[in-house]
Amino acid sequence: MNGIIDDVVDSEMEDLISDLQTLIRYPSVSAKRQGLVDCAKSVAGIMDKAGIKSQVLYSDSVSSGNNSDYLPAPPIVYGEVKSKSNPNGKTILFYNHYDVQPEDPVELWDIDPFSGKIEGDRIFGRGSADDKGELITRIKAVEYYLKKTGDVPCNVKYMVEGEEEIGSVHIEQYLTNYREKLNCDGVIWEFGYIDVGSRPIISLGMKGLLYVELIAKGPARDAHSSLAVLIENPAWRLIKALNTLRDDKGKILIRDWYKDIRQFTPEELCTLSRDSFDENEFKKEYQIRTFVNNVAGIDAIKALVGMATCNIAGLASGYTGEGAKTVLPAIATAKLDFRLIPNMIPEKQFSRLKDHLKENGFDNDIEARIIHGEAAVRTSINDPFVKQVEESANEIFGSSIISISSAGTGPMYPFVKILNVPCISVGSTYVFSRIHSPNEFARIDLLNKTTKCIGRIMEKFARSS
Amino acid sequence: MNGIIDDVVDSEMEDLISDLQTLIRYPSVSAKRQGLVDCAKSVAGIMDKAGIKSQVLYSDSVSSGNNSDYLPAPPIVYGEVKSKSNPNGKTILFYNHYDVQPEDPVELWDIDPFSGKIEGDRIFGRGSADDKGELITRIKAVEYYLKKTGDVPCNVKYMVEGEEEIGSVHIEQYLTNYREKLNCDGVIWEFGYIDVGSRPIISLGMKGLLYVELIAKGPARDAHSSLAVLIENPAWRLIKALNTLRDDKGKILIRDWYKDIRQFTPEELCTLSRDSFDENEFKKEYQIRTFVNNVAGIDAIKALVGMATCNIAGLASGYTGEGAKTVLPAIATAKLDFRLIPNMIPEKQFSRLKDHLKENGFDNDIEARIIHGEAAVRTSINDPFVKQVEESANEIFGSSIISISSAGTGPMYPFVKILNVPCISVGSTYVFSRIHSPNEFARIDLLNKTTKCIGRIMEKFARSS
Repeated sequence: MNGIIDDVVDSEMEDLISDLQTLIRYPSVSAKRQGLVDCAKSVAGIMDKAGIKSQVLYSDSVSSGNNSDYLPAPPIVYGEVKSKSNPNGKTILFYNHYDVQPEDPVELWDIDPFSGKIEGDRIFGRGSADDKGELITRIKAVEYYLKKTGDVPCNVKYMVEGEEEIGSVHIEQYLTNYREKLNCDGVIWEFGYIDVGSRPIISLGMKGLLYVELIAKGPARDAHSSLAVLIENPAWRLIKALNTLRDDKGKILIRDWYKDIRQFTPEELCTLSRDSFDENEFKKEYQIRTFVNNVAGIDAIKALVGMATCNIAGLASGYTGEGAKTVLPAIATAKLDFRLIPNMIPEKQFSRLKDHLKENGFDNDIEARIIHGEAAVRTSINDPFVKQVEESANEIFGSSIISISSAGTGPMYPFVKILNVPCISVGSTYVFSRIHSPNEFARIDLLNKTTKCIGRIMEKFARSS
Repeated sequence: MNGIIDDVVDSEMEDLISDLQTLIRYPSVSAKRQGLVDCAKSVAGIMDKAGIKSQVLYSDSVSSGNNSDYLPAPPIVYGEVKSKSNPNGKTILFYNHYDVQPEDPVELWDIDPFSGKIEGDRIFGRGSADDKGELITRIKAVEYYLKKTGDVPCNVKYMVEGEEEIGSVHIEQYLTNYREKLNCDGVIWEFGYIDVGSRPIISLGMKGLLYVELIAKGPARDAHSSLAVLIENPAWRLIKALNTLRDDKGKILIRDWYKDIRQFTPEELCTLSRDSFDENEFKKEYQIRTFVNNVAGIDAIKALVGMATCNIAGLASGYTGEGAKTVLPAIATAKLDFRLIPNMIPEKQFSRLKDHLKENGFDNDIEARIIHGEAAVRTSINDPFVKQVEESANEIFGSSIISISSAGTGPMYPFVKILNVPCISVGSTYVFSRIHSPNEFARIDLLNKTTKCIGRIMEKFARSS
């Protein structure tokens, strides 16, 4: 069965690719705080050309019209199309971001990271997949609808932010300040993976994150290591402390760490059992022989979607250059990221960590700082929006996989909390498309299919009104 | 009682300082492998001016006359003066080094690190104390002897190397290749501390060192930390491994680690009891409240001179910049320095470490690499040379302290092993003179006294022939 815009998508792929290349050529690296406003304006321009009424919105009135990328936050691009035939019907919101990860290490790229070069069925560049490729599918689906029919099936809104890659620092502020403007009935999330079998992975939630820095303090300045007989080394203290946090099987040993979690519901377990995960492909990609705790099959899937973790993201102390330096460092630090599951509250988990350090005698010399906190959230498998997305994906891709949660974290919790709507992740990103890494690419065949899929979703969503 | 050269030392202090400034102005940082040959030639020039016959010697014939600092090693400066009155008597060898530590962090210096600026009784600059200040006292004592008497009391040799600050990599090769030329009856070591009570600390030995890098290997490349549910994090493995090495009291838990050590002899214990150590000054300097294992008094001194340690000199893994990055690192490394005491053999201790890692199941994913090994050595308290140095120091400084070993490590073992002579450390370096740190300085009053002290040592050493 052909969808309404399928033929237009096929005939307009050059237009889609050309606009995606335009976006890739903006080096909108949020970590560097450069080129963000220019990229936002380009997104607004592409929306306007598509027939989407756009606005570049700033986080408060003071900075409106200010060209600075810094103060107080990069702008969001808001877009809107009212359905003429169904103006009082449902409204879909597309959440995306125009910022990208840094291109480093640039020497590992085979091409200019901001070129948008095409080779075969792939378009290369930082942001080609994450998230400019996804964004363009959302814009073009609406553009081609307007072109073909002069209308859209449902009301459409866009919220395109510029800080996703640095933790969506102001997303809650934007959602709160523009609460009325962003009012909607369902959100299509900024990304969605396609597995090696060309099946879209429709994800209904995200894990939470508690990102913490532990700082162990020793002597007032680095000392000569011959003094290790007398001066306690903060790196040893840090290691002792870290060693109390987790057992060999990955279980977190902090008291009450798992107290607030809710177990999988029967529906979630049922969905899990239909999930799929190519263990061998994954092990090959990372060249590992076994998984933590030797999990396999359904247990590996359960871990990905529903296991809380304590990961060491960074360790630093003393001399880390070539060869030998005999130093007793003044300081040792660890960066820890704890993935959270429903209903863990980041701030509460952080006080449990602090209590743990205190109870184990580390509070005098180890300081714990919270860097980022984000709660987990899942949209119910029973929400009708899930069915609409799943059917759309199946029509275009032949099949799809429902995952009750992504293993990753994003600002989905504030969307659900503030807008009080279902959020669903579906998109065009091939699972090994090297996002955040050199030679990131988007597959043109998947951009094509996902644009069609977005069209179907709008149709089904409109009909359910 | 005035010594023979005391009046010349007093009247020639401007000359001594001027030549020290000349040396400081050579930025002979061995870690950077630059300016070493130029500095060596300058040392040779100052020797020649002093009446000491100098030679710049290369580690093999291939590189003789080659101007490169790199291949295969920086040269040593050899110097020699035959005693006319006592040509068949004893020969003293002064071991020093012309290379210096890097000046980093340069922004913490109040002056140009290579200026040799004088303020009050202090001369500032990298190398002012370690070791150009010490070297100049050895050269000037001989120069002023020749100036005053036309002769020296005993035969004198110098060996001034250019790699001390990077582990004296080729010292054993130089000692072996020039074994005959360096033949002597006693060695005055390159440094010696003066405590806060202006007492020289005469040290008779050095600890050994085993410097090791542990490398824990995880996935083939950094992974997103959401994958921590499945991929074992090498930083966790490293922490588990490190945690098995040492208990909270500093005791090393590797099987047979202490098996080969010899205990303190009764003479050493007796000497220890006369040693002194200003605990409060030390705690103030490093702003610490207590020592490891709460040691105090004689136990602190015992620890400094005779305790084996396992120190973490460096830790590195994953993301160590500002803020948050959610990474599961591919690799985690630790640099460990183990101080050794007599009769531990570095290579043997290293295999014990490797056995330990294997027995604890870490050999599959943690690699241990030896970076540097140096055995401990002590000259016997009963050697007559000790008495001669002690009496000289007492005559000039009023009193002195004998320490059976420095807490630090240097290449004293190959000197004792190859030349088969007593080695004694005595010098001019104020204990808080910031060696290896910004604003390093030498005290002019101590340079003056130590030059006189070196003169006395030569006299007493000659008389004992």
